[in-house]
Amino acid sequence: MKNILLLGAGLSASTLIKYLLEHSTSENWQLHVVDQDLQMVASKLGAHPNAFAHSFNALDTEARKPYIEQADLVISMLPAIYHVGVAQDCIALKKNLITPSYISADMRALDASAKAAGIVIMNEIGVDPGIDHMSAMKIIHQIQEEGTKLLSFKSYCGGLIAPVSDTNKWHYKFTWNPRNVVLAGQGAAAIYKEAGALKYLPYHRLFQQTEFINVPNFGQFEAYANRNSISYLETYGLQDLPTIIRGTLRIPPYCAAWNALIQLGLTEDTYTIKNDGTFTPRMLLNTFIPFKDQRSVEQKLAAFLGENADLLPLFEEIGLFDANYIFKSEEASPAQYLQELLEKAWKLGPTDNDMLVMYHEFIYEKAGAKFKIESSMVAIGQDQRFTAMSDTVGLPVAIAAKLILNQTIQQKGVTLPVYKEIYQPILSELEQYGITFNEHETQI
Amino acid sequence: MKNILLLGAGLSASTLIKYLLEHSTSENWQLHVVDQDLQMVASKLGAHPNAFAHSFNALDTEARKPYIEQADLVISMLPAIYHVGVAQDCIALKKNLITPSYISADMRALDASAKAAGIVIMNEIGVDPGIDHMSAMKIIHQIQEEGTKLLSFKSYCGGLIAPVSDTNKWHYKFTWNPRNVVLAGQGAAAIYKEAGALKYLPYHRLFQQTEFINVPNFGQFEAYANRNSISYLETYGLQDLPTIIRGTLRIPPYCAAWNALIQLGLTEDTYTIKNDGTFTPRMLLNTFIPFKDQRSVEQKLAAFLGENADLLPLFEEIGLFDANYIFKSEEASPAQYLQELLEKAWKLGPTDNDMLVMYHEFIYEKAGAKFKIESSMVAIGQDQRFTAMSDTVGLPVAIAAKLILNQTIQQKGVTLPVYKEIYQPILSELEQYGITFNEHETQI
Repeated sequence: MKNILLLGAGLSASTLIKYLLEHSTSENWQLHVVDQDLQMVASKLGAHPNAFAHSFNALDTEARKPYIEQADLVISMLPAIYHVGVAQDCIALKKNLITPSYISADMRALDASAKAAGIVIMNEIGVDPGIDHMSAMKIIHQIQEEGTKLLSFKSYCGGLIAPVSDTNKWHYKFTWNPRNVVLAGQGAAAIYKEAGALKYLPYHRLFQQTEFINVPNFGQFEAYANRNSISYLETYGLQDLPTIIRGTLRIPPYCAAWNALIQLGLTEDTYTIKNDGTFTPRMLLNTFIPFKDQRSVEQKLAAFLGENADLLPLFEEIGLFDANYIFKSEEASPAQYLQELLEKAWKLGPTDNDMLVMYHEFIYEKAGAKFKIESSMVAIGQDQRFTAMSDTVGLPVAIAAKLILNQTIQQKGVTLPVYKEIYQPILSELEQYGITFNEHETQI
Repeated sequence: MKNILLLGAGLSASTLIKYLLEHSTSENWQLHVVDQDLQMVASKLGAHPNAFAHSFNALDTEARKPYIEQADLVISMLPAIYHVGVAQDCIALKKNLITPSYISADMRALDASAKAAGIVIMNEIGVDPGIDHMSAMKIIHQIQEEGTKLLSFKSYCGGLIAPVSDTNKWHYKFTWNPRNVVLAGQGAAAIYKEAGALKYLPYHRLFQQTEFINVPNFGQFEAYANRNSISYLETYGLQDLPTIIRGTLRIPPYCAAWNALIQLGLTEDTYTIKNDGTFTPRMLLNTFIPFKDQRSVEQKLAAFLGENADLLPLFEEIGLFDANYIFKSEEASPAQYLQELLEKAWKLGPTDNDMLVMYHEFIYEKAGAKFKIESSMVAIGQDQRFTAMSDTVGLPVAIAAKLILNQTIQQKGVTLPVYKEIYQPILSELEQYGITFNEHETQI
């Protein structure tokens, strides 16, 4: 029997565990799952004969060592910062490792030792990063094999809510860490490449300088640029590509309204405002809009919004005009007060389903003519456990586990799924689970 | 003879030294000046019989101790962070101290020990802070003594260039630390109070939400809000004042053009861009403007500016379109590259004179009617040594020194010039040096 050790059984591990258990008898696997929350693990494993739940601190090197020793493959679903520690253990004990996270500089530095130990450390094999790499590289390789010239690659992904659960004016609910959503894009400017020139886009223009995208059967989305699109040029071996941009998808008019929150100053997180026990959302809003004698907060905000005054109902919906609700925080940044409001307004309901949308656009040149390939994928969650996020992160990890254990994947060292021998079998099996890309080519 | 010890003889000490030497015979003073740059000190002191130049590290507690011991009064013109150390020495040795800088929390904590030592530590007695406090408090006290109610206080100050030296389209040259000018307003939002409500103004709106001000005989200025106007409520004993705002003055269209630099992202300082040895201002600008097929950088910037496209010549003047100049920095933030350009474009010429403009506006209510008092002062530099900055910082410090030594100022402890017994004689003597306020009252 082959022994799989899964470290961390949180939200996005449900589908992963389901797949591993469903295949455990035919593949002859034992699955050992470690999480601090034994009850949650037990509920995810059920009474499956090949499943074993363990509750100890997976971050404790000594505690986990005997479990890694017995394993043929380790899957780390721990927070990304812990992967390097696990990788060092796996190298010492010569065990294969899978993580869905980005390869850090420290992880990359382990490549030679992993090869020397004869193991593979497979990273970036969730959805974003993961499915995005695989689905993009499939088309990039096709274009390269035809001897044509790639001119532009744009790629977008968004964790959203399913149309059936889309019940608010922002078309958004939290399916992901709310703080990350509120602070999205803060820090350094976004950087991408357009027509051969590097482009920097500062935070205060990020939700303003957007692109609109039509996804077949799912309508219009709007994308804001991700922090660093340039690093993908190396990952994909496309150093000379004139245009690359990666972005995050929202449904209009989310970006325009979020831009207004940025322009007001409500997403700032570098200073705090005291709450004397009477601080309301209406007061918070009023501190950020210019004074106009005799006008109500609504009227002042409408004046501030100018031609975007039709967004007013979106601000009302999240409770920004509320003069009765008292903030719970005693002292918080504008972003934290805003998050307090949004967590109420954008809470995922017990029957809500999430949705994951991915869209790539490739432009290439062939015999003087230009062609565009669009490739899109939409995944919709089944319920609160088997969410689109859990499916799209868990299935590629699970399939990679199978392919490593049955030696279909032969690569060693620190790697990621940009190679045909890795992405081809994974994409092909993902299709059986309904994770399919709709491809469409046109001459432009 | 009374002995005055001056620590630091940099740019803004010229007028201070001149005053002290001119009064040294009649007042029976000896002046000891310490600075690392002995040649500069010597040139400022000339061959005056009451002047003594010393060159040692004024930050060295042991080295300065014997000099403080011999002094009746110490004046610290060192960088602000060193004042507390000097103050501790002065308390130990029971010597009076003057600094032109803001009272830090650490300085404030020395109040009781200074009183116990029987000394005064006079702070915030340059121009801003200094002359602003004194000229404002004079009118605030007048209004309060008349039993009328102050409703609003707005106060603005700007270090600019004299009309005769105003030779560029920005109407600005560096008379002050360039880096501070480029980064002005970054960090936390500006905070002020308007009609009883706190107002926060984020950086990306700071040069957009400005006020226009007419200064008699000097035309129109434009003000952007200073970081924290609220702390002045306590300093001035005006906790219940509904409106207070303090700002920095520029000459139009500086603020509109600077706002465009902010919106572009050119003032950002949180990340760096590499210069491969070919990086030009034109390339820098191009990284921040949205791509438009076939358009020149000028055309793209004009499109970005929209209705402010008439600002284009201002950007040309600072060399932003230059495709020949190669930046000297090998890796720098956008703000640092911008500063490299501005230091060339806004360099003070050898015959240029600076100008300092201060403007206060008070609104008060009396028997149901509202009145406005405007009070303004303009100082123009005589030459590169006796600048407006040197005059307006140095003279109040020098006069305060005289008033402390001749015991006109009797206050002890850590203080600042918001008291009538301090500001009245100083303002009165400043008038003899042409630093006069033009006051004007109207019913509104």
